[in-house]
Amino acid sequence: MSLLVIKFGGTSVADIERIKQAAGKVAAEAKRGHKLVVVVSAMSGETDRLISLCRSVTPLYDLREYDAVVATGEQITSGLMAIALQQRGLRARSWQGWQIPMVSDTAHSKARLLRIEADKLRARLEDGEVAVLAGFQGVTEDGRISTLGRGGSDTSAVALAAALNADRCDIYTDVDGVYTTDPRLVSQARKLSRITYEEMLEMASMGAKVLQTRSVEMAMKHKIKVQVLSTFENGIGSDYPGTLLTDEVNMEENLVTGITYARDEAKISVIGLKDTPGVEADLFGPLSDANINVDMIVMNVADPAGLADITFTVPRGDVSRVIETLKTHKDKLGYQNVLTDTEVAKVSVIGVGMRSHAGVATTMFRTLAARGINIQAISTSEIKISVLIAQEYAELAVRALHAAYGMEKG
Amino acid sequence: MSLLVIKFGGTSVADIERIKQAAGKVAAEAKRGHKLVVVVSAMSGETDRLISLCRSVTPLYDLREYDAVVATGEQITSGLMAIALQQRGLRARSWQGWQIPMVSDTAHSKARLLRIEADKLRARLEDGEVAVLAGFQGVTEDGRISTLGRGGSDTSAVALAAALNADRCDIYTDVDGVYTTDPRLVSQARKLSRITYEEMLEMASMGAKVLQTRSVEMAMKHKIKVQVLSTFENGIGSDYPGTLLTDEVNMEENLVTGITYARDEAKISVIGLKDTPGVEADLFGPLSDANINVDMIVMNVADPAGLADITFTVPRGDVSRVIETLKTHKDKLGYQNVLTDTEVAKVSVIGVGMRSHAGVATTMFRTLAARGINIQAISTSEIKISVLIAQEYAELAVRALHAAYGMEKG
Repeated sequence: MSLLVIKFGGTSVADIERIKQAAGKVAAEAKRGHKLVVVVSAMSGETDRLISLCRSVTPLYDLREYDAVVATGEQITSGLMAIALQQRGLRARSWQGWQIPMVSDTAHSKARLLRIEADKLRARLEDGEVAVLAGFQGVTEDGRISTLGRGGSDTSAVALAAALNADRCDIYTDVDGVYTTDPRLVSQARKLSRITYEEMLEMASMGAKVLQTRSVEMAMKHKIKVQVLSTFENGIGSDYPGTLLTDEVNMEENLVTGITYARDEAKISVIGLKDTPGVEADLFGPLSDANINVDMIVMNVADPAGLADITFTVPRGDVSRVIETLKTHKDKLGYQNVLTDTEVAKVSVIGVGMRSHAGVATTMFRTLAARGINIQAISTSEIKISVLIAQEYAELAVRALHAAYGMEKG
Repeated sequence: MSLLVIKFGGTSVADIERIKQAAGKVAAEAKRGHKLVVVVSAMSGETDRLISLCRSVTPLYDLREYDAVVATGEQITSGLMAIALQQRGLRARSWQGWQIPMVSDTAHSKARLLRIEADKLRARLEDGEVAVLAGFQGVTEDGRISTLGRGGSDTSAVALAAALNADRCDIYTDVDGVYTTDPRLVSQARKLSRITYEEMLEMASMGAKVLQTRSVEMAMKHKIKVQVLSTFENGIGSDYPGTLLTDEVNMEENLVTGITYARDEAKISVIGLKDTPGVEADLFGPLSDANINVDMIVMNVADPAGLADITFTVPRGDVSRVIETLKTHKDKLGYQNVLTDTEVAKVSVIGVGMRSHAGVATTMFRTLAARGINIQAISTSEIKISVLIAQEYAELAVRALHAAYGMEKG
């Protein structure tokens, strides 16, 4: 007998009909004899409705009160799901964050869980009761309601799976798993039956649509098997129809697990900087103070006049703030010019296999060169290579690389 | 400096605009230097929406889960009101039933408060913070969310006023007070500046639209000054523009305080009962077992054949269940016939002055007789006389009595 944590996202509980369907999947798992914890999100649209209520009082709302308002979305679903499970003949009850309790810090609206006191819950599970947890929420040490940020129900589910030492955490969502690349772009994209936590984290630009990044980090830390699967297809988690996140590398998988692309970046080049020690810190310090996330960085060697160019990428929405910040510090930085280019895309190949196999980068560079695609910047991690290219080539690059690494469906 | 509890009903917090207006009234009281507890209902329509969500899962929902779902309505308003008060420059925070805690029994969906542990709340009030309580809800000893039944926010407010020994409890609603009779029926109806708890309880058929009966009982028991006033008019509670419930009888008020009528009753006559000792118990026992609320009862003396008739009134919706119940016990009761009449109305005159003044009943009977209105049944309490008449005369009777007792506006 296993202990499973099963999480349903907003589209999986969008209305009463879907809540009943989700309850059907839980009932099917119960028939297999598993102990079950169900974690639910707010019905889709509800969280936005509640946020807009807060905003219409004042845009500068107290985040503690925002949390009290917004946490009701999951509370409603938890009660409805418990009723739907009882309707299926299961003994079930709802649990709010404060009832467990799921204790968090006081960073309201994006709180982090500190600990889960799961003894009471565990006793009820042992007794055969199905627990339905309102996701996304916790309670602070001084008894205020907190919420864990967008996608926080994923984190609730994984954290509870860790606290209960669960055998698996199934995340039902509106996609049926993690793909080698975006299936809307590459019709040959293949659903992965498994992926490592690290790969999933690197695939954030694709993966973040599937799982909150923090939940993946938590799963990795506690070695929780997490499965992503579709709520809209037949089959239940115990039949493994989705993508399993694990730390076990499947030797038969390809060298490259996934290819991602991001079109929401912008390239900024600061031209004619004095090439003195500390110029990098002078440049990026103010940007990080302004909470601007710099991604790829390329620095050219100084020219004979002792001037250097630095090129970096930032989220496109931050461009005007970057320019503003650079202007403010122009005297100190002493640069000649700033160039911006928003017509860029970042394409990445990801795979833990890279660690032990050379040649992955070479294949990438050759493939792009053969299509006449110019690489404007390169960054690498142990399991990822990213290149910045002109945006118009993004789709071509992804399709060519997908084929080059032999990632098509079997 | 006084401590005030201020309660806003659903129409007073129906949308963000009204929540802001309500916050304005609270701010005006704060300017007078009062310590303040604000109790809020769900935004109007929200509770119905939540109930219908539960019902659409299954009509036989678990009441504990129903409570978890339905309590969110007040939780949302409490957060929004706290934000609106902060916006007005007040220090304010929301409190859920479990945060106080407001401890209730486990009669979910119609729970009764057992005790309020208000120490934490009191300390914050002393510190000058405005408390915003989500009304209608409590928490059971074992930590489940409970709700107090329709209109339960009134009870939350009065109970908290009692626990905190508040100087007054203002109930803002969509009527501006309690009237001598229904102003839609009698244009001369006068708003009462004060009314005793007992009179308010007797005026339940009118008063229940204004205040939950249980909250009036609680106010009477703890001698809480409760004021009913309109949220849609200018003026705040401390200027006493509404109707004050108190145990002080104002000697200058009229003998009769109010006239009520109820058109949702039905008259049932059981003809030809054997007039043996215990026949009343045999008749009404099964009805009370079936949870049918019998109101007026008239018994005719037995005829020479030893048979008696009993006439009584019940809520109109219960008529078919009464007939059913009587049929089931026909053998034991041995009656000949059952007659029903749904074309009746109950008209009552109410006033604590009756205790010390004779002649109130006589005036009533004479006034009705002068209009040719036949009285079908009479019941009395210390401070109320009710008569059952043909429904078509109801308006005429109320108007005539209102005039006969000199209750018109000054």
